[in-house]
Amino acid sequence: MGSHQKPSTAGKPIRCKAAVCRVAGAPLVMEEVTVAPPQAHEARIRIVCTSLCQSDVTFWKLKDFPGITPRILGHEAIGIVESVGAEVTELTEGDTVIPVFLPDCGECSDCLSKKSNLCSKLPFKVSPWMPRDGTSRFTDLDGNTIHHFLSVSSFSEYTVVDIAHLTKIDLDGDVQMNRACLLSCGISTGVGAAWRTADVEEGTTVVIFGLGSIGLAVAEGARIRGAARIIGIDMKPEKFDVGQLEDFRVQMVALSCLECIELQVINEMTEGGADYCFECVGLPSLMEEAYACCRKGWGKTIVLGVARPMSEMKLECFEVLHSGKILTGSLFGGLKPKSDIPMLLKRYMDRDLELDKFVTHELDFKEINTAFDLLIEGKSLRCVMWMDR
Amino acid sequence: MGSHQKPSTAGKPIRCKAAVCRVAGAPLVMEEVTVAPPQAHEARIRIVCTSLCQSDVTFWKLKDFPGITPRILGHEAIGIVESVGAEVTELTEGDTVIPVFLPDCGECSDCLSKKSNLCSKLPFKVSPWMPRDGTSRFTDLDGNTIHHFLSVSSFSEYTVVDIAHLTKIDLDGDVQMNRACLLSCGISTGVGAAWRTADVEEGTTVVIFGLGSIGLAVAEGARIRGAARIIGIDMKPEKFDVGQLEDFRVQMVALSCLECIELQVINEMTEGGADYCFECVGLPSLMEEAYACCRKGWGKTIVLGVARPMSEMKLECFEVLHSGKILTGSLFGGLKPKSDIPMLLKRYMDRDLELDKFVTHELDFKEINTAFDLLIEGKSLRCVMWMDR
Repeated sequence: MGSHQKPSTAGKPIRCKAAVCRVAGAPLVMEEVTVAPPQAHEARIRIVCTSLCQSDVTFWKLKDFPGITPRILGHEAIGIVESVGAEVTELTEGDTVIPVFLPDCGECSDCLSKKSNLCSKLPFKVSPWMPRDGTSRFTDLDGNTIHHFLSVSSFSEYTVVDIAHLTKIDLDGDVQMNRACLLSCGISTGVGAAWRTADVEEGTTVVIFGLGSIGLAVAEGARIRGAARIIGIDMKPEKFDVGQLEDFRVQMVALSCLECIELQVINEMTEGGADYCFECVGLPSLMEEAYACCRKGWGKTIVLGVARPMSEMKLECFEVLHSGKILTGSLFGGLKPKSDIPMLLKRYMDRDLELDKFVTHELDFKEINTAFDLLIEGKSLRCVMWMDR
Repeated sequence: MGSHQKPSTAGKPIRCKAAVCRVAGAPLVMEEVTVAPPQAHEARIRIVCTSLCQSDVTFWKLKDFPGITPRILGHEAIGIVESVGAEVTELTEGDTVIPVFLPDCGECSDCLSKKSNLCSKLPFKVSPWMPRDGTSRFTDLDGNTIHHFLSVSSFSEYTVVDIAHLTKIDLDGDVQMNRACLLSCGISTGVGAAWRTADVEEGTTVVIFGLGSIGLAVAEGARIRGAARIIGIDMKPEKFDVGQLEDFRVQMVALSCLECIELQVINEMTEGGADYCFECVGLPSLMEEAYACCRKGWGKTIVLGVARPMSEMKLECFEVLHSGKILTGSLFGGLKPKSDIPMLLKRYMDRDLELDKFVTHELDFKEINTAFDLLIEGKSLRCVMWMDR
């Protein structure tokens, strides 16, 4: 599709296949949907690959708002611009793009600041609508509205995404789509959290609570930074073979239950607490444990896990005062999508950053419910689905 | 008292006056006590000035542990070394010293690190004993033990302090004792929190919850750093005359009650939240409000207030994740007593750092209960007591 020739579908609705979440927690339904043309500041994308992230599962299970049905989930993907709406100058038909749940308008005080990646113009929220006009581009064959998810909705052959949520990438380097799509969410989040949010220093100790893809991506970020010791904590150590963890230089501590983390064990292993603790599960009790396992004086706890809405973590006030510990969190690892995704992609192409070992499974899009099963059972890290197979 | 001539009291118990807390929350009792000679790594100090800090009041009120009676409170002071125990080489008789509740051994991994001021060799704890051997140097005239407070116990004409808790200062600059003693706790804590813990940047907005001496010392630190706007929040604005707050460049927001902080007001005043929020009261609800009033993306909340033992603050997990805000706290403002107190004193002597305006009252030691009344009623900032008057 040439960049100067409008596709025949431009300006018209497209009918295509999508995996729709009709009932919270029930298998997605593969059905025909209609995808409206992009409005101003939007692009319609043909998804090439999408992968499954834990947040898709979290929101798929949610019966109450911000859970909502019918909805097209999916937010980790890569695709090709099919057509663009009015006032879009930075993208054109045929461009390869990575959609990201986090906007990057490039103009507001946050996007212009080095200190923040939280766009003020189109503030991140878990909305079922397009970010700019608050409507949907999806309808089912009966003409009923289908909701969006995290401004991406990649479990569809075509989707419409605001340009603030799209990063154009250069494919000159012979990038594989089934690797680059991982930078759309999980791996960027973990690596970014180690580099940008925590700023992991050489020779330090890192403890990671929850060894899914984000946890292992934190490990990868910490490895590249030269962390002296990376300790991983998980309830299901059997899901890894020894080689997998060695690849990421992670030393495993298995938990028999979530309530029985051996704070003392971590304290002993790290000689008084870790320099950095990353919570990658989304459980309040685990966030509190991570905080407890940090070293006094300078230990940082970074929350990356998505907890259930309204859930709270508790901190003893005197501990906050006298420990000198730091608590923070970040979305997308504190990275700015439009500048940092190309940087991460270059580091992958330079064989510096690991992506290959995160892809444990590749499936056809129609097998998407199998991808859910594999992730829920702890059998996969990243399962990449090809839309055209 | 020459430095090479042992005083006649060296090695012998000293009888002197002390203000003893016999019943929690009841007026201190001025009585004769016996102060044992210093043991190894300790010095016996003749207190010249002591001032009253909010933490003295907090612990004076506490009926349960770590409240304990009888006890000699007081931890903000300046004095002269009367004699030293075995193995003390860095101090000698006649040296002027500032005692600090926070140890600085100078040898452990924390004291040697630039990142921490939390000594590992003699870890800070709210103990009623001497830090090294866990006994007391005070007895009453019946021979009963009197407990220590924060390793200082300055409400006594003489006290024994571990050398890790003593900073020697140089009086060449004609330093006034009734100013230098303020660097022993509150003012250092506030200024240090702005400089070291928060690292306040030029042109930023600062909100201070609670305008006691620590809150105003934060303002002073922020003023020196070039903060664009300093907003103070207090329930008792009537305790200040206009000039006092202008001196500290603080813009006041009065609260009608602690539960009704106008988050929206702060948000509007700061255009979306403050760059830095300092909690200087010690109330969990106020710590939560401070966190809420911070700007997304980079806002830092610094807890300085001493809350009641076991009290907890709550944070919504999703807010921690997606706001990118930072929560931390510090003891003694993150400063290292032995190197930073001389630095602060120099800045005071250079007329750069304000100390004079914190001293609202000077009293005789025997009027100590009046000092308590003045602080509790919100009528004083720092009340300095002279021991020899």
